[in-house]
Amino acid sequence: MTSLQPVQRIAEVRAQLEDWRSHGSIGFVPTMGALHPGHATLISQARAECARVVVSIFVNPLQFDRKDDLERYPRTVEADLRLCEQLGADLVFVPAVSDLYPAEQLCTVDPGPLATHLCGAHRPGHFRGVATVVLKLLNVVEPDRAYFGEKDAQQLAIIRRMVADFDLAVTIVGVPTVREDDGLALSSRNARLSVRERRLAPTLHMALRAAATKIAEGATDVNAIKDSAHTAVPRDPSVRIEYLDIVDAGDLQPVAVIGRSPVLVAGAMWIGETRLIDNIRVEPRR
Amino acid sequence: MTSLQPVQRIAEVRAQLEDWRSHGSIGFVPTMGALHPGHATLISQARAECARVVVSIFVNPLQFDRKDDLERYPRTVEADLRLCEQLGADLVFVPAVSDLYPAEQLCTVDPGPLATHLCGAHRPGHFRGVATVVLKLLNVVEPDRAYFGEKDAQQLAIIRRMVADFDLAVTIVGVPTVREDDGLALSSRNARLSVRERRLAPTLHMALRAAATKIAEGATDVNAIKDSAHTAVPRDPSVRIEYLDIVDAGDLQPVAVIGRSPVLVAGAMWIGETRLIDNIRVEPRR
Repeated sequence: MTSLQPVQRIAEVRAQLEDWRSHGSIGFVPTMGALHPGHATLISQARAECARVVVSIFVNPLQFDRKDDLERYPRTVEADLRLCEQLGADLVFVPAVSDLYPAEQLCTVDPGPLATHLCGAHRPGHFRGVATVVLKLLNVVEPDRAYFGEKDAQQLAIIRRMVADFDLAVTIVGVPTVREDDGLALSSRNARLSVRERRLAPTLHMALRAAATKIAEGATDVNAIKDSAHTAVPRDPSVRIEYLDIVDAGDLQPVAVIGRSPVLVAGAMWIGETRLIDNIRVEPRR
Repeated sequence: MTSLQPVQRIAEVRAQLEDWRSHGSIGFVPTMGALHPGHATLISQARAECARVVVSIFVNPLQFDRKDDLERYPRTVEADLRLCEQLGADLVFVPAVSDLYPAEQLCTVDPGPLATHLCGAHRPGHFRGVATVVLKLLNVVEPDRAYFGEKDAQQLAIIRRMVADFDLAVTIVGVPTVREDDGLALSSRNARLSVRERRLAPTLHMALRAAATKIAEGATDVNAIKDSAHTAVPRDPSVRIEYLDIVDAGDLQPVAVIGRSPVLVAGAMWIGETRLIDNIRVEPRR
């Protein structure tokens, strides 16, 4: 039993925040629930930096390109509320779909060229849906600081750019990825993995690590670097690499040769029916 | 000489408004300058309804589909500032292009199906540019109320929907079109008309009025109604109708038969090198 009651209505959130806003800064952690220790670090950092902490839990239909993925997305609201309370959140916003989308969403955020590569190339409309719901949530909560995990690197880059491009008065804080001991990035989707799949899962991180090491050692030919990453992926019928790419860390455009700018080594891998993503930011050797 | 000094920097606007916001409501009138009595009614209404009034003057390159139109757009900033002062504006925001667009605008507002008809069909990207800059300006000023002319009916409908779809905490106020005695809607572009063109200009309103009258009399066949409008347009080599359309006043989709919902009778007409638009909202006879 938790004493932190979820707030569903936008008007209620606004009324509560109106009162808090004059007394100090508002930190905001938007999530899709199924909270894990990665989310906990976001909430804890917000708790340490802001007077009030708002968490939202909303599985956003607009960003799911596949209906089965939306339906199978894990939902654990009771446990999420307990965790939010333990971590000292002040308000948990849990809107229904009809609260955030009372009518057809006709106006959307187009993330343009930031969405054409990496996950964006494989999940049509996904980042349009992400950017749109994040804009809506930022407009409801109007936080001083909003926290996002670096695991979703393309999402974070798009949100940073959206905030700059739309002149939103919020500071976006990126929080480092939390990993299991074997390197697997924490993700709500990890809960779907079978024991056998779970053993295969860290190979995505190993592949990205192999590429990142090559770059840190001075390699510059992106195709050769990507080949070395692919050799780290086990030949297993249940494993399929969706992409392994190296892009400029700022504009997310593919690079052919490693230069002096920071790059993201990023990948998506299917294990059985589950899609995992991960990335490593690398500063090339000077 | 005016004592109301324009403010160019976003940070300066925010600092000034931060101070004012706690003392009462903020009204905002975004314009492209070249102010005429139509704008004056917007500013006056904001003055009557809000504690502080902010006017912006910014010729937004993102919404011009034709470079020559952007270059030829009238600019009268000194006179605009004097008018703003006379009407009691408290702050005039006059950003440079590099203030609002310090980098390439990668994220934009996609107005979706609201932009596929009327002007949107003839000015590719126009409403994307309008919605994007209005969102930016609303985020800089964060007004309680923002004022827009009904002359730009499609723009007003898109902004209303954007505000609802993105959960912006602002009230959008539509202000009736101001007309010359002969019916011509006031527009900054009217300044471009020659004496001969000016005499032809009211025929757009006459054509729309002819269609609106038919609807008010009970006509329902949209093609027949449009034919009657076209007959009101003079056969003159310098006059060209771009479109005359009848759309649902809410979702801006074309209607084939007049039903019970309000419609917009809207048109765009070229006179020489100048493009004029106008519209009439009609409540069908019950």
